[in-house]
Amino acid sequence: MAEEAAVRAQAEAVRRLKQDKADPDEIAKEVTKLLEMKARLGGDEGKHKFVLKTPKGTRDYSPKQMAIRERVFNAIITCFKRHGAEVIDTPVFELKETLTGKYGEDSKLIYDLKDQGGELLSLRYDLTVPFARYLAMNKITNIKRYHIAKVYRRDNPAMTRGRYREFYQCVNDRRILDGMFAVCGVPDSKFRTICSTVDKLDKMPWEEVRSEMVGEKGLSPEAADRIGEYVQLHGGLDLIERLLQDPKLSQNKLAKEGLGDMKLLFEYLTLFGITGKVSFDLSLARGLDYYTGVIYEAVLLQQENDHVEDPVSVGSVAGGGRYDGLVGMFDPKGRKVPCVGVSIGIERIFSILEQRVEASEEKIRTTETQVLVASAQKKLLEERLKLISELWDAGVKAEVLYKKNPKLLNQLQYCEDTGIPLVAIVGEQELKDGVVKLRVVATREEVNVRRESLVEEIRMRTSRP
Amino acid sequence: MAEEAAVRAQAEAVRRLKQDKADPDEIAKEVTKLLEMKARLGGDEGKHKFVLKTPKGTRDYSPKQMAIRERVFNAIITCFKRHGAEVIDTPVFELKETLTGKYGEDSKLIYDLKDQGGELLSLRYDLTVPFARYLAMNKITNIKRYHIAKVYRRDNPAMTRGRYREFYQCVNDRRILDGMFAVCGVPDSKFRTICSTVDKLDKMPWEEVRSEMVGEKGLSPEAADRIGEYVQLHGGLDLIERLLQDPKLSQNKLAKEGLGDMKLLFEYLTLFGITGKVSFDLSLARGLDYYTGVIYEAVLLQQENDHVEDPVSVGSVAGGGRYDGLVGMFDPKGRKVPCVGVSIGIERIFSILEQRVEASEEKIRTTETQVLVASAQKKLLEERLKLISELWDAGVKAEVLYKKNPKLLNQLQYCEDTGIPLVAIVGEQELKDGVVKLRVVATREEVNVRRESLVEEIRMRTSRP
Repeated sequence: MAEEAAVRAQAEAVRRLKQDKADPDEIAKEVTKLLEMKARLGGDEGKHKFVLKTPKGTRDYSPKQMAIRERVFNAIITCFKRHGAEVIDTPVFELKETLTGKYGEDSKLIYDLKDQGGELLSLRYDLTVPFARYLAMNKITNIKRYHIAKVYRRDNPAMTRGRYREFYQCVNDRRILDGMFAVCGVPDSKFRTICSTVDKLDKMPWEEVRSEMVGEKGLSPEAADRIGEYVQLHGGLDLIERLLQDPKLSQNKLAKEGLGDMKLLFEYLTLFGITGKVSFDLSLARGLDYYTGVIYEAVLLQQENDHVEDPVSVGSVAGGGRYDGLVGMFDPKGRKVPCVGVSIGIERIFSILEQRVEASEEKIRTTETQVLVASAQKKLLEERLKLISELWDAGVKAEVLYKKNPKLLNQLQYCEDTGIPLVAIVGEQELKDGVVKLRVVATREEVNVRRESLVEEIRMRTSRP
Repeated sequence: MAEEAAVRAQAEAVRRLKQDKADPDEIAKEVTKLLEMKARLGGDEGKHKFVLKTPKGTRDYSPKQMAIRERVFNAIITCFKRHGAEVIDTPVFELKETLTGKYGEDSKLIYDLKDQGGELLSLRYDLTVPFARYLAMNKITNIKRYHIAKVYRRDNPAMTRGRYREFYQCVNDRRILDGMFAVCGVPDSKFRTICSTVDKLDKMPWEEVRSEMVGEKGLSPEAADRIGEYVQLHGGLDLIERLLQDPKLSQNKLAKEGLGDMKLLFEYLTLFGITGKVSFDLSLARGLDYYTGVIYEAVLLQQENDHVEDPVSVGSVAGGGRYDGLVGMFDPKGRKVPCVGVSIGIERIFSILEQRVEASEEKIRTTETQVLVASAQKKLLEERLKLISELWDAGVKAEVLYKKNPKLLNQLQYCEDTGIPLVAIVGEQELKDGVVKLRVVATREEVNVRRESLVEEIRMRTSRP
């Protein structure tokens, strides 16, 4: 930067004046000038102190990473569209009070905007609460929507690395949990907070969860032990049947309702042929306050050596459930709209796919360019621009190097680097003959194509089989 | 809400006690109870005071609006891909200091996040500064990228409505402007602020712009008048040639450089055959500080009756320019990376397209569902689920009504409403015969298709010609 250079020059001038034992007044004058210059630059010694980074917990996506992310998005969007879902969008921030009282203990992780006059705003914490606000505002009672957007949480992001083998889903029901809490002797007022503690079972062993219940949350040791017996259960239809016979649970209205619906769910899973992928798991709790019925998570199992038997779970990549009360919280008359949904953690799936791509050494293209317009001789910039203009107008994806007289070798190398499959070469002779030389980068094959057939030839050679 | 009903009942009880002239102590007791109940509800008279809305200046997109927005995106993305662009993404917020000192007078419109501990953050104001930060951080000197994302400005959003005829582009160069300011007698220190004032010429007449220059910005009336002569000029190559001969401008190094590059640009525009769509306009200034060379805007012209000659401009839908200094502001050694870009205002283009769609009464589909799996008789939920499961597994986009025993008429009506072209009907007889009845919604034609051929039949009938 020019200003920094000026400061350095001034510092050098001062040093020389001192060295030459110049007039003290003159030295003082030049030192003052130096200090003023530094002050203007705003840093000591004119050093650039600014830290060049993205905010903590955020990241950029490079073109290669975006190409991988697009694959993840496409797989997900294709699935939603296959099931007839519509798409909506909502603003990245909401009125602060829209988010108030919806997330329980997680509310402290909400990003607020600074009060700069006007409304008090917060960044959205999930897509569920804005969706419920949207339904209530537009009085919609029937919609199947998907929504792909970023959400913001003031969390300490920890990215688990590792190799992953497969997904499985675990399922539970808030009513079964609440019924279980009731029959275990948890006071009503402690249901939500004990539920938050149960939710930590995927990250800490039962002993720690138990001691949080008894120590921090003030639950009786007996109640905690009774919970401990239930939350270690997991299975399928057989477990549901067994719990429906459980002398305590079967007496609880909520638990019975939840178990009845869980049974119906497993009947549908049987119809779809996917019971093997789903486990009914009494330890699944989900942290958020707003769930009212079935809850579920998709969990990744770590890739293991064949010797090891039980694959280790490395964490949830998707989760959701039923939230029948949320829209009613926004409706002036409290009208309820039953809702059920799932949230997919794109970031995690993305980083798994990224690792896989890296491991496979697959070459990822970041553009879709079909042809590079090139020339072997000099002074053909205008001809290159004319030709590429024709191709663009015909909808062909084409590039041209921006140099006036690029070397042919550099133009071919650019194709190798970026995966462009074809080169259209113009030269004096081709222009005279009314042809373009089309080169296939992979095979180095070259053919002369009549200029008027070029578009069709390129299309033919780049259409997917 | 149950609590509100209880408050109303209590208020009624108090009213009756007063009416009956009951024991004052008893009245006081019940009034206290009423006040407590109201306090718990947190509002006067138990009214729900929460305002159900999106933050000022933001909006939701419904499925239909999203379908239109996707069209706009697709047109833009297709164009970028045709020219070989890569895509990147950056976080929605940046460190506050990343944005500091980049936008001149517009900086006051930046949204800051609340200081909740940790880093000071701001919502991105454009995609250009985050892009420059990305380039400097990753030491990238050569990339052609596009980036589709929302940006945030604490503006008073005004949405011009109207009917629009066509786009045109106007072009200028910051160096020509700076050269012009110099030869008109504007002091160096006032270049940027006078430039901001010139930028208002599309919204206010020259007289007002002049009075802001002289009044607010303290420019001499003579300098303002000299600027006034220049900024009313617009044209093409002829104007560039004339200005290159201008006795004052041609003596200014910056202006000469700018005019030279403008001439080259118009030579390229001639090659591309689009000089008719581009006007060299000396009033174009662009508000942002960071431009260093060519600047341009795409402007919409209002649809007029054929009688009116000059179409009225209704505003800019895209704009950009060259910003060769921005990346250097982030680089610790101040290394410059020349950049040039354009920003497209999706919202405005979207609302124009939305109006056009409304006017045309075109029916917009919000899903891509190919077939509805239906039944004419009762007790066939399981069979419907089995069939749709087969279709989904084969990649067919299919829906089923969620009712246990929906009426056939309602199922057909659903297809009419949502534009689903086909219905696959299962009944006792079809199940016995191993067929599915396929109905074409538009023509009411029905054919029996063997179950094993159903997927292919649906594909054949829904593939685009």
